[in-house]
Amino acid sequence: MAETIFTKIIKGEIPCHRVYEDELVLAFLDIGPLSPGHTLVIPKEVAATLAELSDVSAAAIGRLLPRLCRAIKAATGCKAYNVLQNNGARAHQLVNHVHFHIIPKPDDRQGLGIQWHAGGLDPTEGAELARKIASGLAE
Amino acid sequence: MAETIFTKIIKGEIPCHRVYEDELVLAFLDIGPLSPGHTLVIPKEVAATLAELSDVSAAAIGRLLPRLCRAIKAATGCKAYNVLQNNGARAHQLVNHVHFHIIPKPDDRQGLGIQWHAGGLDPTEGAELARKIASGLAE
Repeated sequence: MAETIFTKIIKGEIPCHRVYEDELVLAFLDIGPLSPGHTLVIPKEVAATLAELSDVSAAAIGRLLPRLCRAIKAATGCKAYNVLQNNGARAHQLVNHVHFHIIPKPDDRQGLGIQWHAGGLDPTEGAELARKIASGLAE
Repeated sequence: MAETIFTKIIKGEIPCHRVYEDELVLAFLDIGPLSPGHTLVIPKEVAATLAELSDVSAAAIGRLLPRLCRAIKAATGCKAYNVLQNNGARAHQLVNHVHFHIIPKPDDRQGLGIQWHAGGLDPTEGAELARKIASGLAE
């Protein structure tokens, strides 16, 4: 069980601007926001990445997201927003405890910057890859 | 109820490389992948943005994510990945039906490109904003 800044926030050892808390989930403002209202949603369960998180904690976060998005929209007046969850240093994860970012996108300057270099999907390779993922899910 | 390419995929009018389906959720490969294994997870419920989605559908997607991430990791061999969900054209939403991207990040060239221009959070403004969001949640 790895101690991180987020486990310390959960325990109250480090303060946060809390917006929501229940038995499973804590939400608070990011102190390095990409835009006003940038909020983090974390499980109290200690898990470094989403693949390691329990179904119960993941469902609890999922269930909270729409309500939290509505409250952030209402508080900031910003209608566009991104939800982002990074896993692994290569994918821009900085704290090794699962966290979902909700990031309002008020204008082109603020919020999440996204670079989107889409490729193509060969039908035969796609079918094979989908089969592999589906068979992994069935295990 | 707005018809989109995703409602047509749900109805089977447009084919997809399906990896998972249940009563509430459908997951399939993105045909314009940012990297191999790029997968979309959508609710069958028709909702343009996450703020409009029901708690039940949002919880069902949340619950599925860890298992799906594990299956995509196993199928692709890629350990790092991003989960992204965009709301509004300004935030890079292209199809007006809620969708979560799971995007493997095998190297710097492939996967999601992120630009992260973090600002600061004034403690007084942070406390006020957190209070506003929390009070919106309580409604």
